[in-house]
Amino acid sequence: MSAVTNEEVRAAAERIAGHVLRTPVMEVSPGLWLKLELLQHSGSFKVRGAFNRMLSAGELPGSGVIAASGGNHGLAVAYAARALGVRAEIFVPEVTSPVKVAGLKALGADITQTGAIYSEAAEAAAKRGAETGALPVHAYDQAEVIAGQGTTGLELMEQIGEVDTVVAAVGGGGFAAGIAVGAVGPRIVAVEPERIPTLRAALQAGEPVPVEVSGVGADALGATKLGGLAFGILSGPRVESVLVTDEAIVDARRELWARYRVAAEYAGAAAYAAVLSGVLRPEVGERVVVVVCGSNTDPATLVTG
Amino acid sequence: MSAVTNEEVRAAAERIAGHVLRTPVMEVSPGLWLKLELLQHSGSFKVRGAFNRMLSAGELPGSGVIAASGGNHGLAVAYAARALGVRAEIFVPEVTSPVKVAGLKALGADITQTGAIYSEAAEAAAKRGAETGALPVHAYDQAEVIAGQGTTGLELMEQIGEVDTVVAAVGGGGFAAGIAVGAVGPRIVAVEPERIPTLRAALQAGEPVPVEVSGVGADALGATKLGGLAFGILSGPRVESVLVTDEAIVDARRELWARYRVAAEYAGAAAYAAVLSGVLRPEVGERVVVVVCGSNTDPATLVTG
Ligand SMILES: Cc1ncc(COP(=O)(O)O)c(C=O)c1O
Ligand SMILES: Cc1ncc(COP(=O)(O)O)c(C=O)c1O
Repeated sequence: MSAVTNEEVRAAAERIAGHVLRTPVMEVSPGLWLKLELLQHSGSFKVRGAFNRMLSAGELPGSGVIAASGGNHGLAVAYAARALGVRAEIFVPEVTSPVKVAGLKALGADITQTGAIYSEAAEAAAKRGAETGALPVHAYDQAEVIAGQGTTGLELMEQIGEVDTVVAAVGGGGFAAGIAVGAVGPRIVAVEPERIPTLRAALQAGEPVPVEVSGVGADALGATKLGGLAFGILSGPRVESVLVTDEAIVDARRELWARYRVAAEYAGAAAYAAVLSGVLRPEVGERVVVVVCGSNTDPATLVTG
Repeated sequence: MSAVTNEEVRAAAERIAGHVLRTPVMEVSPGLWLKLELLQHSGSFKVRGAFNRMLSAGELPGSGVIAASGGNHGLAVAYAARALGVRAEIFVPEVTSPVKVAGLKALGADITQTGAIYSEAAEAAAKRGAETGALPVHAYDQAEVIAGQGTTGLELMEQIGEVDTVVAAVGGGGFAAGIAVGAVGPRIVAVEPERIPTLRAALQAGEPVPVEVSGVGADALGATKLGGLAFGILSGPRVESVLVTDEAIVDARRELWARYRVAAEYAGAAAYAAVLSGVLRPEVGERVVVVVCGSNTDPATLVTG
């Protein structure tokens, strides 16, 4: 039994409806749709989970919310906190680029830069949260977060109707897991960069295990280990694990821009890479939805790769 | 009586259906939609008119098609010609940037660079077309081209249902005129940069008259004079002329990227500029569709403006 139910995804959709965009889908060739979730507020689906977590919590503590992430999750939590008028404390590792820190600051978040890597920043955030009582918003391993991300799957089913396959990228697994619960029926192709195979490793080990993290997707797909809740869902039926090379991701990102003027970040192009590279070969008549899920990228690099 | 009918737009929609994308719409705030026509093949709506013109012509001559444009129209004609397997000769003025010439070449077009300004290139193209018998595809002043562009209007009505106002940019006027014919019912707000007021000048003079062309929109909205067919339509009821400053266009382009990751060129952001700057103030409950119509831009400039 999955720890997150389709009813919870439906409830999340109602809860967050006024706060997130219903991102469009576009059929780019017969039977192939792009779900343009990269146009979402804050530039990724992460606001769905962030809003659902915050709005599920009842009254939020005076100390607000707290999260660890130098990337899309941090931006999303900061965005949602500002929208709901509460404080957001975001812990980011020291390596986080000044551009990203500036982006978080622009959203009004309080930033603490600490720890050499993500897990150290996350530990510091947990400690701080325990002191202040702020609501922790996890990047992927909380039921409300997964249910929120899952509204992407619910939405694309409503928009397209019949769907055979949904293709989505995996980092900590909250997104793909949510989609698997939210999109009833289709098979879920869970795509990871070869160099960050958290799901593949978990499936082989029979439980989430740490992997090495490197490559172009690392800034957004760089969870070192699949989430436990996500594992419960993604190890189930209907889910297929697929790996793509960094080269395929770079190509896919370039082609999304050249062909459709869709400005994805690398992680956002990973799912499309599975189709473009031929790792995933849809059958004749198969109805496939590729979720393009993030756009927090320097647009200057869209042409150069 | 308009020289282009709604039936012709409907026929165009059927004719070009397999060749162009049904571009998505996104509701970005209650009652305000973006029609994301910038995601269209070749980066603008111009392929709609180009395909309709070519597919209406019966068998195309061996010498193919001919057009004058260093911009989106040229790209669209080259794209459509390649798709239909015919030759495209594109005449561009000598000032055309090497990047644009390269873009046209990449689509397999034969390029002739001649004339100091657009009108000289256009004259040379007309002369050459008369010699070779190639089918001329005008940028805006042909009924089939206007009917093709009008499918944008038809489509957005199908997608959204009830619409009160459609906001679209004007250069030679083919696009807004087509939309006025294709979208039955709503008022059409025709937006021009202050520095290229072809429609405003035509409405004041009672006929199309030449205007000075300058400013950020000049590369795509830089027709010196409104088209005659467009004037017949845009001088009618339901159409309102609105001017925006270059500053408002620059702001709108930057905000489209910052808020929604929509990578528009200046001309593509002109319609949104009317809303964002407050030149156009929708009433409470008014359902407004802003057409974002072009993305042939250097993405590196999306952040810097
Ligand atoms: C753009 C993008 N895509 C995919 C993911 C992966 O999501 P998850 O960690 O829930 O698997 C992330 C996570 O940050 C992301 O930012
Ligand atoms: C992006 C864009 N928007 C608007 C226009 C204006 O179209 P029209 O000349 O039909 O008025 C053009 C014309 O090239 C264009 O390229």
